[in-house]
Parts: sequence; C-alpha cells; structure tokens
Amino acid sequence: MIVTLTTDFGQEDPFVGIMKGVILSINRRAQLVDLTHNISRHDVAGAALALEAAIPYLPPKSVHLAVVDPGVGSARRGLVVSARRQYFVAPDNGLLSFLFSDADWKAVKLENPAYRLLVVSSSFHGRDLFAPAAAHISLGVPIHRFGPAVTDPVRLVLREAKREGDSLTGAVIHIDHFGNLITNIRRELLEGLGADLVVEVAGVRLQGLALYFQDRPAGQPGAIVGSTERLEIFVSGGSAAAHFKAGKGTRVRVWKR
Amino acid sequence: MIVTLTTDFGQEDPFVGIMKGVILSINRRAQLVDLTHNISRHDVAGAALALEAAIPYLPPKSVHLAVVDPGVGSARRGLVVSARRQYFVAPDNGLLSFLFSDADWKAVKLENPAYRLLVVSSSFHGRDLFAPAAAHISLGVPIHRFGPAVTDPVRLVLREAKREGDSLTGAVIHIDHFGNLITNIRRELLEGLGADLVVEVAGVRLQGLALYFQDRPAGQPGAIVGSTERLEIFVSGGSAAAHFKAGKGTRVRVWKR
Amino acid sequence: MIVTLTTDFGQEDPFVGIMKGVILSINRRAQLVDLTHNISRHDVAGAALALEAAIPYLPPKSVHLAVVDPGVGSARRGLVVSARRQYFVAPDNGLLSFLFSDADWKAVKLENPAYRLLVVSSSFHGRDLFAPAAAHISLGVPIHRFGPAVTDPVRLVLREAKREGDSLTGAVIHIDHFGNLITNIRRELLEGLGADLVVEVAGVRLQGLALYFQDRPAGQPGAIVGSTERLEIFVSGGSAAAHFKAGKGTRVRVWKR
Repeated sequence: MIVTLTTDFGQEDPFVGIMKGVILSINRRAQLVDLTHNISRHDVAGAALALEAAIPYLPPKSVHLAVVDPGVGSARRGLVVSARRQYFVAPDNGLLSFLFSDADWKAVKLENPAYRLLVVSSSFHGRDLFAPAAAHISLGVPIHRFGPAVTDPVRLVLREAKREGDSLTGAVIHIDHFGNLITNIRRELLEGLGADLVVEVAGVRLQGLALYFQDRPAGQPGAIVGSTERLEIFVSGGSAAAHFKAGKGTRVRVWKR
Repeated sequence: MIVTLTTDFGQEDPFVGIMKGVILSINRRAQLVDLTHNISRHDVAGAALALEAAIPYLPPKSVHLAVVDPGVGSARRGLVVSARRQYFVAPDNGLLSFLFSDADWKAVKLENPAYRLLVVSSSFHGRDLFAPAAAHISLGVPIHRFGPAVTDPVRLVLREAKREGDSLTGAVIHIDHFGNLITNIRRELLEGLGADLVVEVAGVRLQGLALYFQDRPAGQPGAIVGSTERLEIFVSGGSAAAHFKAGKGTRVRVWKR
Repeated sequence: MIVTLTTDFGQEDPFVGIMKGVILSINRRAQLVDLTHNISRHDVAGAALALEAAIPYLPPKSVHLAVVDPGVGSARRGLVVSARRQYFVAPDNGLLSFLFSDADWKAVKLENPAYRLLVVSSSFHGRDLFAPAAAHISLGVPIHRFGPAVTDPVRLVLREAKREGDSLTGAVIHIDHFGNLITNIRRELLEGLGADLVVEVAGVRLQGLALYFQDRPAGQPGAIVGSTERLEIFVSGGSAAAHFKAGKGTRVRVWKR
C-alpha cells in the first residue's frame, strides 16, 4: 500500500526519515511517496492545498499522512479520515477541511494506544502517533478501530472566491516553484462566467485566457486554468510573482469582456 | 522496474509526488529513484548533464523520466527513446541529445492516447503524458507502440571543448553542490594531451592534475578528472566557484607543460 | 532490507540518485530511505547527530550508509560496523563515534575488492565503495567478509555537557528546521539534577521545563526535553535561533531552582 507524506519539516533534519522508519517498522511493504516537506512552517492551509492537488493522482486505498502541527502536544485531537476512497491521518487543525465538504466522509479520533509507539513524546506526534497510525491503516486496520467517531472536525475558514453578478473576486493563495500565481478561483466558477474573460491582477488587465504558457510571447503575462483546475497567472518563460510583485493574498478580479 | 525522475520542479510543490502517484497507479511495483528535481528552471542542458552522469549507474531496462519543458503545451513533441539498454521519456527539446551521438538508438513520438491520462492538461505534461508513458514502459510495453519513429530529434548545440595543437579550450558547464567547477573537457580529450598538464582558469595556472582532493593543501585549488570523467577545478576543503568567482561559461584552458 | 542514506551531497546534483542506482543494481529489492542529504558540507559531527537520532526508529538489520567525507581519496579507511542490531557503512572519520561507546560493536575495514565497483574513482567513494558495500550487506553478506577487524576507529572528541555540583554547562550543537536549539545536554544528565530547573541561554533565564511547545505563550521562549531526548530551547510559534541570535556553540547552563 502507498503512504504519502506531507509536512513542514524541511529536509535538513532526519525528521521525515524517522517517520519513514516508523512506518516501515510496522509495514515493511509500504510504498512511501513524498508529496512535499517544504510547506511553510505551520502553514496548515498550504498543506491542505498541496494534498488536495495531489490525491486525485494517487490510487484508491492510498494513505495520506500530513503533519503540519503548530499545536503539537496540546489538546488538539489527531484524526483518521476515510474519504474519496482513500485514507488520511493528520492533526485536527483544519488540514483536512477540504474533505469535509464532500457528501461522504468518516472521521475518527486517533486515540487507541494499540496503534502508536510505546513512548509518546510531547513534541513529535508525527513520529509517535501519526506515522504508526498511517502504517497500521496501510496494513488494513479499519478506521473505527482507532477511536470514536468525530463529527465536528476543525474546518479552516478559507478565503473563497466570490461571484457578484458577472464578476468574480478572488485572491492568490499560492506561489508555485515557477513563480505562477495560483488563485482560489476554480474552473467551475470561471466557466459559469463564459469563455471571454478579462483577468485583473495588480492593476494589469489580461485579455482572455491562454490555452498554454507559450500562447503568450516570452516575458508577457497571461491567465490560464492551470493543472490544479484553478485560475493561474503566469509570465511566459518568467515569474509572475516577480513580474507583478504579487504574493499570497494579492487580489484577482475576473469579469466578462 | 526502476523509474528515475529528473525535473526542474523543485520540492516546494507536490508536482513530483503527483507524477509518482500517476506512475504507481499504473505500475504499483515501480521502484522510483529521484535523480534531482533542482535543475535550474528550464535548463534543458543542465538536465541532460545530470541524466548523462547518472545513467551508467542504473541497471539495464531502467526507465528515465526527464521533464524540463519550457515548451509545455505547444507543438514540441514528446519522445520515447531506447538507448544504452535503457529507456528515456522526455520532451523533444534537446534534453536527450547526448544519446543521439550513440551508434545505436531508437526514438518514437509519444502519441498513442492509450498511454496517457484520460484528460491531458496544457500545462502539466509531466503528469498527463510523460509519467504514464514511463509507467507503461516499466510494465514492458514496447516502445514502437507509443508512436511513429522519430529520426530527427532536436539536438542541443552544446558548447564542446576544442583541441588546437597541444592545447584545449573548454568551459565550465556546471557548478556542483561543493562548488567544484565541472568542465566540458572529457577524460578522453585530456588523455590525448598526455599526463603533464597545465590548467588555466580565471587567470590562474594550476600545475599538473591532482589524484584526489586532499592532494592539495587546504584552501588551495587543483584540477582533477572528477567522478563524471570530466576535468573539474576544485579547492581543497573549499569552494572553487567562490575562490575563482567562476560560473557557468567561465573559460578553461589546458596545455602540455 | 532497508538501506538509509545520510550525506552532505545536497539535492541539486544526481549524486544521491547515483548511489541509489548502484545499490539497486546490486540488490533490486533494497528499500531506500533518505535520512537527510543536507548535512552542512563536511560536517561529520552533524551527520553523526542526525544518524544517532534516527536509528532507534529503523528496524533491526537496517543498513545505514553515511557519507560525509572530507578525506575522500586519501588514506582514511572505510568502515563497516555492526552495532545496535543494525549495520553501518561510512568513512572512518568519526562519523560513527557514537556507536563506539556501546558495550557491543564490531568494526571491519572496507577492503575486499569483491564488494566495490570495478573502477574506483578518487573523488566519489560514496558511489564506488560505500554504496556497493551497503548493498551487499543488505543482501546478507556477513561483515567479516569486507576486511580485517578494526579496533581503533577514529572517535570524534565531542563537546560534552559537564556537571559541576548542582549545575550543568553545555552548548547548542544543532539548530533544527524550526529554529529550535538542540543542546548536548541529554535527558539522563538533566534528570540527575531533579525536576525544578533554571535554564540559561544568551543571558536569559528560563524557569522550569515546558512539557510541550504550547505550554508557553506565542512568541515566548521555553526549554523542553525534545524528541531526541536532549534539552532544547524553543520559542512558541517562533524561532529560538532568531530570538536568541544563537548558533552552534552557544553556551547553555542549567541549575536547580
């Protein structure tokens, strides 16, 4: 079974390798896949975004271990969730919010001491609680064995794009490695507006959507529905983040031309 | 079967994990090996260099997936190549040039829709086209099934070292993690010149080749035939890039002492 | 069998992928786990610290390949060590010192040419000597086959914390990804002093030990016995390294309140 890992642990310390050691000690046949360990420190929403983008491309029954955990050691719960034919293990801090708007999900509290390390530290629950749980799920342990049902998991209040009449107002929620500005405006919302659009960011109006990056001359900006099915602002062969001096939170508007 | 991955995707986003999910969804038994994901953005020649250095150390039948793809979504072809008893999947942008000076290689256009994801985006062919192709090759699909033969793949015009009489003129083509200056002067070319050499870089003359880094006192520079069978300039216990303020393109000359 | 990798090779070059290719060429079923490849260049003590923290979480018979090797190519020996029911392959430069205070360990010199690549370069023993040895151990080759016993391996003189009367003097030995200051004061040493302690770092006195990070208000510093069983200085929701302008070597004192 596949176990993916998403954390804000970085790659200088052996933290991720330690979690992998714990998982493989329990399930020697687990296939481990790193999604990313470079989530900004304590950026729960950023981890949610990365995980949400990745899971459609992992097979059913994959187990997703996500540890961005500013409240480690405190009273916040640990969660095991079954949704989208996959499994999720994470602190109950909103990281898995995006699953809870689905019609069908089940969550339980991570509580059963049978599925954790013998000694649980107060500062590394990724190692002592979450990794063992993920490993046991990958062995086929049903999720109700981990603890009682949770019906009120923490939900992040995400900045969602809004439609008013024929225009949308949204924001940049992520800058990717290439400097593309990823927005909270999803394809469905855009499509409601028709095909002929104007996108405004940082005072600049971009006419129409590009079909691919090379649709625009080198150095020129464009808007595109990107690989995560969201509106993205790019600069052909360059960085939109640098070009627009934009960052997370930069406002983006869209209207019919 | 082993599938290696080489990209310029960095490690902040889940892009690489997503490609791995696609591969494992098709071939659950693929063994995934990262070569590097920190190729400079759109540096096709840099990816070629990394891949060429690595493949002698991977077993026969390994599949190498390399995605540095400034032309994603545009008309550039995708390639599947069989060479050196291994397989390669990459955009047709020169990344695989180094294979095409071999006596024996076969290339086909990546075209058969049976070997891609159902929906192909315009901005992430690594996920939608190249990763599925690599996975299918790792399952044993013969390369002629992917599309028609390609006999005119794009070849990079690489800056090659030149010999004139008893001297060579080359250049730095890569700075490695330790600050060593990797040149385009290969061992064979050097050996034609004999053993007793002078190497000049940034106005400094280095007498003779070192056998290993510790051959030079701490802080002193030297020249060596490095682990990639190319002439490298190093500083013992230090960084040659910093010492010589050198970078990609810095000229290097070699002559008989 | 599991083979872990710890190096200072970084992730820009294909060095680590090349070592993995060598291992998998010898043992196609090896399970590879990266501990970290971001050890500071030539920081042997830093590699030892990472490895020591990780190995309790890897299963018995794991093979640990660690290559931080400022003396590559010179006369320093290569070692194969059996200790703590696991195996270790590393240069004999002190990296494995922490094992040699155990009651039970065996070390041999890495010498048998049957267990290396056919051609051994002078600058990449990780690839040519250490990776093949790790792969052969993972296949079950007994360690005495690699070479003669070594009874005098190099031992690092580590800066150890000292107790004088009712106080301890130690130092910061590592800054982790979150900016926590990891000290050389181990839990056992602390416990000898009782529970009610004062910790002084950079002229600031921290009263008592925290049980978890959230025990202190946001932005406030605290001391805790961290996940590696060492005294750590943290700032709740922040970076202790930035807060205290502290680094490796910063002195830390502890006494009874």
